[in-house]
Amino acid sequence: MNKQLILEKRPIGMPDAATWKLLTNPIPEPGDGQVLIENYYISLDPAMRGWLNDSKSYIPPVQLGEVMRAGSIGKVIKSNNHPKYKVGDVLTGWGGVQQYSLTNGENYYPVDTNLAPMPTYIGTLGMPGMTAYFGILEVGKIKAGDIVLVSGAAGAVGSVVGQIAKIKGCRVVGIAGGPEKCKYLIEELGFDGAIDYKNEEVSKALKTHCQKGIDVYFDNVGGEILDAALARLRMHARVVICGAISQYNNTTAIKGPSNYLSLLVNRATMQGMVVMDYAKDYRTAAQNMGGWMMQGKLKSREDIYEGIENFYETFQRLFTGEKNGKLVLKVKED
Amino acid sequence: MNKQLILEKRPIGMPDAATWKLLTNPIPEPGDGQVLIENYYISLDPAMRGWLNDSKSYIPPVQLGEVMRAGSIGKVIKSNNHPKYKVGDVLTGWGGVQQYSLTNGENYYPVDTNLAPMPTYIGTLGMPGMTAYFGILEVGKIKAGDIVLVSGAAGAVGSVVGQIAKIKGCRVVGIAGGPEKCKYLIEELGFDGAIDYKNEEVSKALKTHCQKGIDVYFDNVGGEILDAALARLRMHARVVICGAISQYNNTTAIKGPSNYLSLLVNRATMQGMVVMDYAKDYRTAAQNMGGWMMQGKLKSREDIYEGIENFYETFQRLFTGEKNGKLVLKVKED
Repeated sequence: MNKQLILEKRPIGMPDAATWKLLTNPIPEPGDGQVLIENYYISLDPAMRGWLNDSKSYIPPVQLGEVMRAGSIGKVIKSNNHPKYKVGDVLTGWGGVQQYSLTNGENYYPVDTNLAPMPTYIGTLGMPGMTAYFGILEVGKIKAGDIVLVSGAAGAVGSVVGQIAKIKGCRVVGIAGGPEKCKYLIEELGFDGAIDYKNEEVSKALKTHCQKGIDVYFDNVGGEILDAALARLRMHARVVICGAISQYNNTTAIKGPSNYLSLLVNRATMQGMVVMDYAKDYRTAAQNMGGWMMQGKLKSREDIYEGIENFYETFQRLFTGEKNGKLVLKVKED
Repeated sequence: MNKQLILEKRPIGMPDAATWKLLTNPIPEPGDGQVLIENYYISLDPAMRGWLNDSKSYIPPVQLGEVMRAGSIGKVIKSNNHPKYKVGDVLTGWGGVQQYSLTNGENYYPVDTNLAPMPTYIGTLGMPGMTAYFGILEVGKIKAGDIVLVSGAAGAVGSVVGQIAKIKGCRVVGIAGGPEKCKYLIEELGFDGAIDYKNEEVSKALKTHCQKGIDVYFDNVGGEILDAALARLRMHARVVICGAISQYNNTTAIKGPSNYLSLLVNRATMQGMVVMDYAKDYRTAAQNMGGWMMQGKLKSREDIYEGIENFYETFQRLFTGEKNGKLVLKVKED
């Protein structure tokens, strides 16, 4: 049987347990040209919160009664004349929060589990890693010597942003929640500085950590931290808008950045990004990042929880921050 | 004697009559390498409000006791061995709110009053025009067919932004205050649409005027109008942050744009600009704009008030909107 998590009702503010419903349905049969995938791990990402809202965005919302959208990795267990994939192939794609899924292979990518473990392919070598790669390189346009600030720095995207910036010769400061994460940024990932937003006043800490200001700010959080960063931009700074996790569960209007006129004063640019736009270059990015991983320059850490039944409580960790690294849910034994 | 307007105290919120003080001092003598200029017209611009605040910006604030900074145009009436300028030359520059000023010529430009009247050289062919030119072309990066929205559209900068966008083959919608200004945009300047923010709900009006969305938004006002524009961005839109007149007299925090995540959804860019950065290309811009004026494609309208004694009441018109076109104060008979 196939356990599937269905969107049951649209949340207002923070999702609760009644937002989704777990169903058990028969395992489907692949149609002509399709493969059946057994999903082992699914990716839990802040962006999923946005997909629950019935509003125009960069991707259509998940519909009520539909399987919850999620990035996934699994193995082909049946093929019905698929032109490219055969039984045993390991694929990542958009399998959703379910144990089995069908696909014609569009937006799925084969991976080699001899090179990296499965969870890494939905983390550092998956969408979060791609987001970091293209965001900091293509939108942030970092160059050696830049002072780079990243929020959500211990998370799936932020940790890769900071490490790539270090590889490229930047000075990197990360903002994360709690002393343990900050220690991890400095001692494990080689960041030059870390600010614990749960125990420090960010705007004050930035005066110490970014005395000369900020060339590139990679924003995953929005809210007051975005404002604090804007206040310290250098001339011609770039602000990459990747997400705004502090605002996703708002029941009132999003807090806009009061300090946005710093863009004028400093001739700076604030630009939004969505990873899907870079799909044609995913392969190159994965090769580069895989290379850095093998050289020990890029570290990946996944925090893996088990059981599709535990989706809701695991999902909450995205917003409480009670996780260490990329949040992954194991939904089936591999 | 030289009537000079001095910054007397820093305003909180809207400046009042006690912000400045009018002094009468002897006309100064030019030092070696200096010229003495008799100033005829000074430019009144929203940016002047920012120069009154004692905070870090793109230019140092006017100091207490200093002559109020302002763009100006006047005639050289004495030269003390100036290498370039001689008596009778007409120069524009930063003469300030006073009838006579000294300069070594730095940041002053000679103009030909046979080609355009003096007030035009501190309007469409001066800083406001340059701001429009570089803002819409270099930052907005308009191309034919773009849908361009501009706020403060009947003002010194906005009216030129819209006209240049029309010259470049864009569809142009302007936002201005009152039916008379809107009529002017359509009938005199050839805009495709006009929204009267004093009598219409801008976000609703934008649905009619920019059905397909906005490619370039040139923002002079900030606040709710910026938010309304952000909500209608098209993919890869550009938002030019030139000013935020709705926020300059705030006594509380500036209203940040709540809809800034539209930058993410639409992979859009918000970029600030300051005209001084383009000084090396002013000459080219003035030639192009002068050419358009002679062809009747670019119209200039100045609203000229008289008397340095009337600075304060004239200045207020920037914020009440009680003016038609570029606000100019005549401070001396020419």
